[in-house]
Amino acid sequence: MRTINVDLGDRSYPILIGSGLLKDIAHYCAEAGFSERSPLLVVSDTEVAPRYLPALEEALRSHGYTVVSHIMTAGEASKSLAVYEEVMTTAIQAGLDRNSAVLALGGGVVGDLAGFVAATYMRGIGFLQIPTTILAHDSSVGGKVAVNHPLAKNMIGAFYQPSMVLYDLDTLRTLPARQVASGLAEVVKHGLLVDKEFAYWCRDHAEELLDLNVEALGYALERGCAIKADVVGNDEREHGLRAILNLGHTIGHAIEAVGGYGVFLHGEAIAIGMAGSALLAAKLGRDTSIYEDTVSMLSALSLPVRLPSEYDEDELMDAMMHDKKFKEGKMTFIVPDSIGSVSIVNDVQESLVREVLAELKKEERPW
Amino acid sequence: MRTINVDLGDRSYPILIGSGLLKDIAHYCAEAGFSERSPLLVVSDTEVAPRYLPALEEALRSHGYTVVSHIMTAGEASKSLAVYEEVMTTAIQAGLDRNSAVLALGGGVVGDLAGFVAATYMRGIGFLQIPTTILAHDSSVGGKVAVNHPLAKNMIGAFYQPSMVLYDLDTLRTLPARQVASGLAEVVKHGLLVDKEFAYWCRDHAEELLDLNVEALGYALERGCAIKADVVGNDEREHGLRAILNLGHTIGHAIEAVGGYGVFLHGEAIAIGMAGSALLAAKLGRDTSIYEDTVSMLSALSLPVRLPSEYDEDELMDAMMHDKKFKEGKMTFIVPDSIGSVSIVNDVQESLVREVLAELKKEERPW
Repeated sequence: MRTINVDLGDRSYPILIGSGLLKDIAHYCAEAGFSERSPLLVVSDTEVAPRYLPALEEALRSHGYTVVSHIMTAGEASKSLAVYEEVMTTAIQAGLDRNSAVLALGGGVVGDLAGFVAATYMRGIGFLQIPTTILAHDSSVGGKVAVNHPLAKNMIGAFYQPSMVLYDLDTLRTLPARQVASGLAEVVKHGLLVDKEFAYWCRDHAEELLDLNVEALGYALERGCAIKADVVGNDEREHGLRAILNLGHTIGHAIEAVGGYGVFLHGEAIAIGMAGSALLAAKLGRDTSIYEDTVSMLSALSLPVRLPSEYDEDELMDAMMHDKKFKEGKMTFIVPDSIGSVSIVNDVQESLVREVLAELKKEERPW
Repeated sequence: MRTINVDLGDRSYPILIGSGLLKDIAHYCAEAGFSERSPLLVVSDTEVAPRYLPALEEALRSHGYTVVSHIMTAGEASKSLAVYEEVMTTAIQAGLDRNSAVLALGGGVVGDLAGFVAATYMRGIGFLQIPTTILAHDSSVGGKVAVNHPLAKNMIGAFYQPSMVLYDLDTLRTLPARQVASGLAEVVKHGLLVDKEFAYWCRDHAEELLDLNVEALGYALERGCAIKADVVGNDEREHGLRAILNLGHTIGHAIEAVGGYGVFLHGEAIAIGMAGSALLAAKLGRDTSIYEDTVSMLSALSLPVRLPSEYDEDELMDAMMHDKKFKEGKMTFIVPDSIGSVSIVNDVQESLVREVLAELKKEERPW
């Protein structure tokens, strides 16, 4: 078992990565401080629940826990205030009290929504995350919990740290190939941000990662979580440094918003966004090899790097204007300076971003 | 001008109490650190907005601030997730960014809802409270922000401290008499909790308080805020001591839930609840003079102390089971030991609470 400690003072918590962790869920709940006298709420979705929920409930009940489960429809469309209210209703009807906890069994959507429920039910109760996707390695570190507003993604939320994250690698084996690649987009992103060696390692081990080789995947998740934990530990509430984690996300979120959540998977959308950031870097005078290498990494991981022609630049620009990275009238982008190093650029001109979007649709590059 | 500092480490903030503060709102916004480059959102309601919003907007705009306002229907029914989402929509459409702030202009409902918006818009932006009721002196200290769930009051929320509270006594002059009395219920509660002298002072100055005498009211608000700030400062997230602030609230919330929010004003409901707590105290062996004096104080302030006969005990008990004060299967009540001193009693039997409810409907007392 691999353990990463996310160091956030009195909100610190461990991430455990290994095989077969779920059968000991009651032990981990006790370790997280959850009392058997207060009901637990498991939030999961229609994809994940049939596979892992019955065993999870049984393991908890056989150790004296009272469990109620709420199963939402799988997919980003469930990350809404309407579903949030339904989960709240389940929690109230089940009699959850201040010593209760929410367990998120699923991917990033389940984690984000269940986390926002935990953050705001009775002004905050316990929270344990059980990510069942690779992508969720990213959202399970950092305490960002949220739901979407119809006008913009992740607009409603809080910073709320879990008591513990349990990463059972066995739950990843049934992931569809597209989901695997999508998750690896955030993994390689952490390399692109601060760890050149790890970024190239991801490219060189792309086949093993896509095949869910336990050794390679365990290492990649550990490294991805550790890098993110390090960044978050230095800037819990996103006043500065933490913003680098948004590499590829400004364009990526716009693609998701314009195309409709779920057309591109999140990792696919930010892969295109990261390619766009590398193009922007070239326009700002950085070496064009950054773009070439970024694209080679993403392509090795079976990720898209071009914007489909049906995406309208005006609509994408509009969506970005609603994005959180748009601050005080100027556009902010995370721009690579080299592989493994990025800058936060606060005064990117709108016209330059439009050019990047147009070029992202083309096969050939301007150099 | 009177100033109370709420001491919460890096979340500390001042409460300013005085006449004519609103005309200097731009100055206070600058002092709170709000940038003119980011839009401000004023949240108010249909009762308060016509009186004070135009001048507030003008004062802000003339100093270079961009302001957008959201006016909700006055009343507790607006403290819902539906209205919360509408305010979020206004905020997004107005382009509020991470350096923006929400100004709550109104009573407790406006403050609670606007505060929850501020706490969760982009995971938390600036928040300034401008209470326009006496009751709001209570909700403006302590950082509790929330909306109601149809099944239970204040069930969805967060702890989120404002940057500043501006109490302009001029805004209280147009309050209806019932609202004045309702607000004074929380004022005298603070005396009942920890300050015997202040509790009797409220009774002895009831007439001046009900007449909104500026000197008496300024002192009462200062003392009420200071007591609450002191309690909250010792227990920001309600792990222990802070629970004493719930005196009268378990029964009070049940009365509001069963009768429908808004039938009894909040202060009226908790006045009945405080009478109930004093009755419970007598049943638990405390001196019956606690009840007599509590009732004399509440009555002097024109507050109700008896439960109308149409309220069903079963329904009230059910409502309490959903209440946050119901923890791990036992009923918790704040019980006075004397005027100015209370205990948290964790193992109150259900049957005893039923007896209290029944007796609260009667004119005569069992002693």
